[in-house]
Amino acid sequence: MDRLDPMLAAHPSPAHSSRMTAEECIAACADCAAICSSCADACLGEPDVAELVTCIRLNLDCADICAFTGRLFARPSARHEETLRHQLEACISICQACAEECARHEHMEHCRICAEACRRCAEACQRELGALVP
Amino acid sequence: MDRLDPMLAAHPSPAHSSRMTAEECIAACADCAAICSSCADACLGEPDVAELVTCIRLNLDCADICAFTGRLFARPSARHEETLRHQLEACISICQACAEECARHEHMEHCRICAEACRRCAEACQRELGALVP
Amino acid sequence: MDRLDPMLAAHPSPAHSSRMTAEECIAACADCAAICSSCADACLGEPDVAELVTCIRLNLDCADICAFTGRLFARPSARHEETLRHQLEACISICQACAEECARHEHMEHCRICAEACRRCAEACQRELGALVP
Amino acid sequence: MDRLDPMLAAHPSPAHSSRMTAEECIAACADCAAICSSCADACLGEPDVAELVTCIRLNLDCADICAFTGRLFARPSARHEETLRHQLEACISICQACAEECARHEHMEHCRICAEACRRCAEACQRELGALVP
Repeated sequence: MDRLDPMLAAHPSPAHSSRMTAEECIAACADCAAICSSCADACLGEPDVAELVTCIRLNLDCADICAFTGRLFARPSARHEETLRHQLEACISICQACAEECARHEHMEHCRICAEACRRCAEACQRELGALVP
Repeated sequence: MDRLDPMLAAHPSPAHSSRMTAEECIAACADCAAICSSCADACLGEPDVAELVTCIRLNLDCADICAFTGRLFARPSARHEETLRHQLEACISICQACAEECARHEHMEHCRICAEACRRCAEACQRELGALVP
Repeated sequence: MDRLDPMLAAHPSPAHSSRMTAEECIAACADCAAICSSCADACLGEPDVAELVTCIRLNLDCADICAFTGRLFARPSARHEETLRHQLEACISICQACAEECARHEHMEHCRICAEACRRCAEACQRELGALVP
Repeated sequence: MDRLDPMLAAHPSPAHSSRMTAEECIAACADCAAICSSCADACLGEPDVAELVTCIRLNLDCADICAFTGRLFARPSARHEETLRHQLEACISICQACAEECARHEHMEHCRICAEACRRCAEACQRELGALVP
């Protein structure tokens, strides 16, 4: 997402307390959303899909929450802080849960990669949450 | 959404503590998401659009958050409770903020209707949040 | 979605050639998106989940496409007609494919209901497509 | 999105005729979705927002369509080809329209960057469309 930095820099009245944490958060969310969608689809293609149902469900929720959390932060204007905080908490919470479940299956490369993306996204959201607090 | 009740009833292992609050939550979120998208678009068509920028921004965030919150609850299996709680709190928070802002413009019918949809959605999410707590 | 009609009626410059077909399309898409998300989750809870993988994948695609197609039409202003046409065609196409696959499993009530919702959504999108053509 | 390539490579039964075009398409869609969301928000912050209403509307549609088109391709299994083709056509169509409109305002850096992201996304979708055709 190499256009993201000049884009956020070009905004007439950004409210991000730190453009760097915002960018990391947006990019990590987009990455995690795509990876979780791929992982759910990969799990559905495994012979032991019945063992992976919890993983698939968490992947789907995580893909959705990350997709929309990232989108909120791609809008750099002043917004409703309380909402942003709850949304980041939801995102951190599902990313951690999904990372933990995927880590239980990390003999499968797609789950290993997904656990990593989820962990990185949780960390980026945590930093953005820290940057929000007044 | 008249197919929603039989659908949720047909699930092999639903985790909703109350099917009624879940249904209300899903339907209210879908309704609020569509209404907020319409309201943003209507505000963009008003001659005094420059006065409505905050309203449009809240409408866009509210449409996104409601769309995805409803989707989480349309999946009736046991899920990650902590995440659901944060997500409902984010949804209640943005619905209240959007309702408040739209109410300031309720001489415009679209904002009046939108304020109403947001309030109803916040209430439905609040009831679902109550139904979640163990 | 009982607020949808007054909402679309309150828009300052709607471009819908027919408000009725637009409303049906928006409501059918929202319905189908929620039902498909539920059906995917229900299929994941069935003992023979391995037999339902194609169904789950079509459900996920259909839920996503319906969610976003409906959202485009919830914005009533003049838009890019060619895009709307392609988007409706994508939505009709996935709804028909998903209806067909779900119909193969209609001994399961959730698949029977989902096939029905997909068919109704395909029809509503078809009518909206007819209303678009100049 | 540096985890995307190993992720797609780890899928048990990918259907992409070319992993490279799929990856480019997913990444370009994610990029364009975020940039268009930012551009709409930036336009809303400009003093002459009333002149930018068409641009904002196209940005919103483009952000939505790109977000969901990318998501479809992040699921690498065999899918419904006809749907994918229509969806790519919708995405190319809105990206071209949005690029054209943004290019009219390219004295504003955010519109210039957005036009560029839209053009690159249209091209990536075009290549993926070529890779789909049997």
